[in-house]
Amino acid sequence: MDFTHDAHTEELRQRLLTFMDEHVYPAESVFAQQSRAGEPWTTPPVMEELKDKARSQGLWNLFLPGADGAGLTNLQYAPLAEITGRSPRIAPEALNCSAPDTGNMEVLSMFATEQQRKDWLEPLLAGRIRSAFAMTEPDVASSDATNIATRIERDGSDYVINGHKWWITGALNPNARIFIVMGKTDPDAERHRQQSMILVPRDTPGLEIRRGMTVYGYDDSDHGGHAELTLTDVRVPAHNLIGGEGDGFAIAQARLGPGRIHHCMRTIGIAERAIELMCRRAADRVAFGKPLAGQGVVRDWIAEARVRLEQLRLLVLKAAWLMDTSPEGAKGAHTEIQAIKIATPTTVEWILDKAIQVHGAAGLSQDIPLAQWAAQVRTLRFADGPDEVHKASLARKEIKRWAQ
Amino acid sequence: MDFTHDAHTEELRQRLLTFMDEHVYPAESVFAQQSRAGEPWTTPPVMEELKDKARSQGLWNLFLPGADGAGLTNLQYAPLAEITGRSPRIAPEALNCSAPDTGNMEVLSMFATEQQRKDWLEPLLAGRIRSAFAMTEPDVASSDATNIATRIERDGSDYVINGHKWWITGALNPNARIFIVMGKTDPDAERHRQQSMILVPRDTPGLEIRRGMTVYGYDDSDHGGHAELTLTDVRVPAHNLIGGEGDGFAIAQARLGPGRIHHCMRTIGIAERAIELMCRRAADRVAFGKPLAGQGVVRDWIAEARVRLEQLRLLVLKAAWLMDTSPEGAKGAHTEIQAIKIATPTTVEWILDKAIQVHGAAGLSQDIPLAQWAAQVRTLRFADGPDEVHKASLARKEIKRWAQ
Amino acid sequence: MDFTHDAHTEELRQRLLTFMDEHVYPAESVFAQQSRAGEPWTTPPVMEELKDKARSQGLWNLFLPGADGAGLTNLQYAPLAEITGRSPRIAPEALNCSAPDTGNMEVLSMFATEQQRKDWLEPLLAGRIRSAFAMTEPDVASSDATNIATRIERDGSDYVINGHKWWITGALNPNARIFIVMGKTDPDAERHRQQSMILVPRDTPGLEIRRGMTVYGYDDSDHGGHAELTLTDVRVPAHNLIGGEGDGFAIAQARLGPGRIHHCMRTIGIAERAIELMCRRAADRVAFGKPLAGQGVVRDWIAEARVRLEQLRLLVLKAAWLMDTSPEGAKGAHTEIQAIKIATPTTVEWILDKAIQVHGAAGLSQDIPLAQWAAQVRTLRFADGPDEVHKASLARKEIKRWAQ
Amino acid sequence: MDFTHDAHTEELRQRLLTFMDEHVYPAESVFAQQSRAGEPWTTPPVMEELKDKARSQGLWNLFLPGADGAGLTNLQYAPLAEITGRSPRIAPEALNCSAPDTGNMEVLSMFATEQQRKDWLEPLLAGRIRSAFAMTEPDVASSDATNIATRIERDGSDYVINGHKWWITGALNPNARIFIVMGKTDPDAERHRQQSMILVPRDTPGLEIRRGMTVYGYDDSDHGGHAELTLTDVRVPAHNLIGGEGDGFAIAQARLGPGRIHHCMRTIGIAERAIELMCRRAADRVAFGKPLAGQGVVRDWIAEARVRLEQLRLLVLKAAWLMDTSPEGAKGAHTEIQAIKIATPTTVEWILDKAIQVHGAAGLSQDIPLAQWAAQVRTLRFADGPDEVHKASLARKEIKRWAQ
Repeated sequence: MDFTHDAHTEELRQRLLTFMDEHVYPAESVFAQQSRAGEPWTTPPVMEELKDKARSQGLWNLFLPGADGAGLTNLQYAPLAEITGRSPRIAPEALNCSAPDTGNMEVLSMFATEQQRKDWLEPLLAGRIRSAFAMTEPDVASSDATNIATRIERDGSDYVINGHKWWITGALNPNARIFIVMGKTDPDAERHRQQSMILVPRDTPGLEIRRGMTVYGYDDSDHGGHAELTLTDVRVPAHNLIGGEGDGFAIAQARLGPGRIHHCMRTIGIAERAIELMCRRAADRVAFGKPLAGQGVVRDWIAEARVRLEQLRLLVLKAAWLMDTSPEGAKGAHTEIQAIKIATPTTVEWILDKAIQVHGAAGLSQDIPLAQWAAQVRTLRFADGPDEVHKASLARKEIKRWAQ
Repeated sequence: MDFTHDAHTEELRQRLLTFMDEHVYPAESVFAQQSRAGEPWTTPPVMEELKDKARSQGLWNLFLPGADGAGLTNLQYAPLAEITGRSPRIAPEALNCSAPDTGNMEVLSMFATEQQRKDWLEPLLAGRIRSAFAMTEPDVASSDATNIATRIERDGSDYVINGHKWWITGALNPNARIFIVMGKTDPDAERHRQQSMILVPRDTPGLEIRRGMTVYGYDDSDHGGHAELTLTDVRVPAHNLIGGEGDGFAIAQARLGPGRIHHCMRTIGIAERAIELMCRRAADRVAFGKPLAGQGVVRDWIAEARVRLEQLRLLVLKAAWLMDTSPEGAKGAHTEIQAIKIATPTTVEWILDKAIQVHGAAGLSQDIPLAQWAAQVRTLRFADGPDEVHKASLARKEIKRWAQ
Repeated sequence: MDFTHDAHTEELRQRLLTFMDEHVYPAESVFAQQSRAGEPWTTPPVMEELKDKARSQGLWNLFLPGADGAGLTNLQYAPLAEITGRSPRIAPEALNCSAPDTGNMEVLSMFATEQQRKDWLEPLLAGRIRSAFAMTEPDVASSDATNIATRIERDGSDYVINGHKWWITGALNPNARIFIVMGKTDPDAERHRQQSMILVPRDTPGLEIRRGMTVYGYDDSDHGGHAELTLTDVRVPAHNLIGGEGDGFAIAQARLGPGRIHHCMRTIGIAERAIELMCRRAADRVAFGKPLAGQGVVRDWIAEARVRLEQLRLLVLKAAWLMDTSPEGAKGAHTEIQAIKIATPTTVEWILDKAIQVHGAAGLSQDIPLAQWAAQVRTLRFADGPDEVHKASLARKEIKRWAQ
Repeated sequence: MDFTHDAHTEELRQRLLTFMDEHVYPAESVFAQQSRAGEPWTTPPVMEELKDKARSQGLWNLFLPGADGAGLTNLQYAPLAEITGRSPRIAPEALNCSAPDTGNMEVLSMFATEQQRKDWLEPLLAGRIRSAFAMTEPDVASSDATNIATRIERDGSDYVINGHKWWITGALNPNARIFIVMGKTDPDAERHRQQSMILVPRDTPGLEIRRGMTVYGYDDSDHGGHAELTLTDVRVPAHNLIGGEGDGFAIAQARLGPGRIHHCMRTIGIAERAIELMCRRAADRVAFGKPLAGQGVVRDWIAEARVRLEQLRLLVLKAAWLMDTSPEGAKGAHTEIQAIKIATPTTVEWILDKAIQVHGAAGLSQDIPLAQWAAQVRTLRFADGPDEVHKASLARKEIKRWAQ
């Protein structure tokens, strides 16, 4: 188990740290201002400038292994993802490393046909368009993939899609040109061979965006929101299918592993920034004649935050290392990936809560990013299945280890 | 210690429960819809209809003791406040029992001159206008009242006010006609005689509303938001002072006690509704072949929620009873009022978090009120001073009991 | 809901407080010393002196309602039980109010024949003998009464008993003259009519005490320990049965309700004493130049302890009041009794843990009673069924309230 | 950061695992039985057999770096220490790797004169004698070393020692032949140059063992207990001093670092065994018709236990690795060593508590080792200074990182 940064990673880290200082942190207030002033659901213009700079510095598509991307291992990318998490609404997208595009590019990189690559992967890799991933449905428990109700039916040389989705992140942004839709091609097949994934261009008739969902009071307009949408007799050519019929579940699984590590590392970056903000505020703010940093309870929170976060980061690094080195790949890191999925939101939520408390009312407001981050992190406790489902599964495996 | 509902309270409870069923719950979706469609910072029109109905049924100004109001004790009002908390964005205002008007009416009822009563208390009691309470300032720790920087200076027969305030709830609503402003008339006086309160009509030159603050992304537009405002050479006649110069701290204290009990009971009402929503969802939602109600972890949450809430309610009732019966009044309930201020937000936050988790992503969205309530409850952990300040004070007293 | 102490209760409280100051607290070190020096499993001699004094002052059998005892209601006894909990290893027994005798006397008072009363209830009421209650078995989950494996079989005019019991509190004390044994008379009867209770005198052949169980290293020798015992062809006359065949489950239920309230109130008394010890230590002990009472974290613990304990006490009082006043008696307080069973150990464990931490290593040692109390309180999390079973049951009821 | 087991470590791990299976686990019941039957304060005879076997297999003095010991780095020893923690009352001592001898041997190996080495280090390394470390005092907060009251005064060619110590682990065992005593040689010197350490043979006149302290109800008799002792005009030759006058504080610091890593890894071993016991019990025990392993709440505990423990272990390994590789040695790992000191007891206490709960009453008894381990782990929350002191220190450093 070796977590040492190799020279290449270290060089990228230094370059990225400089990029954060020079471009990202200064852009935060600009982004917020443009976001308030601009058209709903569009990206503030400063983002394109940042993307140009990042691309020109080789800080681009770092998340993507293989020839299509920067070719980094999970362990190499992990510390970089953490750094981008320090400005989570700007840095990942500036580096073309933001969800859901990341997962979608991974899927296309692994499973797309030549034509699909040309039509969609290339503009995505270039950062010219964005994309959406349409899996979650309002009427069923999405933690159980066999519940999916959307139908993808073959009709001649087309597929016809009918379904109802929500929480489709980024989908309200008019530049999200392509949707990967999960649905059932064969409801009678074996449990994990019923689902398929198919590419649906934004403008296809019958695809209707209904509204944006909010998380707490945030609509995430500047990141394309979270759409509720319906698909009514949506017709696409058969060659829009990704992989073969029945491959949907397997592709979804393949998409999950690295995504969780990215998410967790970015979330750790959020927590690091929160600790920084908390410490600065504690040192500056005076109450009852001494700085908050002199209050025992505040110090206790800061120490706990540091101690918990150090442990969490190591676990995420271990999961990344295991994915890279296990002969079984992601499968060999299955338990660790579940573990970080469980541990990360809870730990970081706790840290954000304390950082907010140290800031008082400002901590919940638009003046400090903590509340918005807290809202985002809260969603991780049920995104891709609620914690409780993952815990039950992890426990079953642990029990089996000791008792047959 | 007798918490029994007397006949009058019980009659009001029944009347209020019927009012909730017949008018309030059905109005919730209407209110939300009008809120999205209406002018920012104004009250959705359905509210006036509800107010008419409540007034005509004698469900009006229940919070206010004495001849100005319904004349209830704290213990009589407590169970009614809890019921209004079940629909916290509608019921309190429909009954003319919503903050900050409640505290402001209490202050005016206790301390106003005849003219002040006629000008401001009467229209407030009638529900014709609304009001704001301007105490919190951005640059200082408001938990320490001696920090207040706003100046109220005598100039001939006027006072001239200069200061910077924020988190002034309701102030963006154009119908908030009158502001009670806290400032210092004599910074050299004894610590708790430096502050005064003064009435500033909304249209007074120099009073400028800068912006609305958000709480977790919510601007609370339909309740007049939370304003940042500046007072620049604001001039009002000297007879606008409430009480005498130097009375500000004492008036603020008098305002706090009952307000905390109201807040806590309403917050318990929120928690009761959250438990109801959680139970209904647990019974209805099926995952992995059985309703969530069959999951041990969900049942554990529901039991914990019930056990914690029962304890909390009794403590709030005790504080109300003590305030009513102690020869020292609110002072005699000082420790208990601190205790409920500490216990309520934490307990209810926990319950809301679990209710959200049972709902999955919907629980954080605009479709279910839980996230908005959670945001509101979160603010209670520092409103009127952070929990930590109250805990330190309570502990000092406890230690003194045992060790001189 | 009226928790006011009536005049009689208040008079008893004052008398008991005086008794604690004059006799109980001073006896604590004597008891500890005699306990170390004396025969294993016997009661230190100072106890008989205390019992004489308590009896002569009318502080005797306070727990027992009706003509056999002091005739107090649950709500009257509750504050007295709390006071005895402040010295939990001495005061309850000194007043003839200690488990398991209390529950056994209640059972006999309600269900015994004249002969049984004369033989066993009278000497127990007089404090001349002690008793044991043999229900728990090592091989089955005792939270589920239908699991009981001990057999009670009719053989002519006798019953013959065979079984294996453990955690039979007090049974190693040679003065525990009588055992109430729970077993099955008819394993084929309806679920809750299979069990019966029968009186087995200590010296009956075939009743064999095997060993004393320890709790965190404590053998509780000075309270008769916790025995593992076997019953091998133990033969007693048929008239030793309590009630009729099949009444065992109902009698066990009747025994539980008041016992839980007593336990909880005594446990609250422990917590009050722990807070006192914690405050005194915090005020006295200096580290890094200031008393521990000046440490923010210590103050936070003390405040939390007070806030949690106030809430808990009110809930226990409510349960007592409900048992007294509900037309259904204990059944009408079923949910509240479950709630206090769940809430009490967790709350008090937390308080004891912090009190120990403030004492450092001394807090875990024989010099301070905190660790021994913590061990005792820990057992309450599974005595009479683990918390988890009670929570699941309480939640099922709550869910049913809202969703049919 | 590389935690990979090298070949030597892996070979030792395999050898040790076999030794545990073949000798240690089978000896557990023998040890317990001999402990109950034997003389107080002595080691059960089975231990000598185990030591012989371990020595003959090269599983000996693994903790000690350099030529005196096995020469392992901290990172090499860590996984071995964890394994010994799985049987914490037997395995460490069987391998001559148990506290306080380990720390004492480290001190002697680093600082002893030739004569001191011959007299005391050699028999300790051979496992022929045991030792004690007398630092903690009853009357002062030991987290602050400048408080030490014991005096070591030069008198001709002797030192004369007067003081009062307690919690001197192992000291009641008659085979603890040598005590390292910490006291002040110069109370007027600079804060950290006042203290010295000196060797006091057990039989020196004036050294009086007063009693054994208990932890919960355990006297740890089979490990020589925890003594309270007094030193009255104890006279030893001047060459018994370890290092020079005033070196005491520095030696104590040097002793701490590796000791904390050993402690933490052994404690992780305890937690691993507890998870194993919990899983086995959950799989075996049936309640209400299904195994406990089918209860959602039990599964939640098991998953949490695993997730928390994985994180903790990685942090301890990181601390070990840092100590080995940092150019500043232990100092370079200062924050991490504080962090594991804070995190380990809390995490493992939580796991033990759940493991106990799954076992019901048996979990607290002498039949299952969980309660004894819990008592031992509880002491770690204040051993070498309470957690709160370490947290405050860690937080101060963190705040300084961000705000000057």
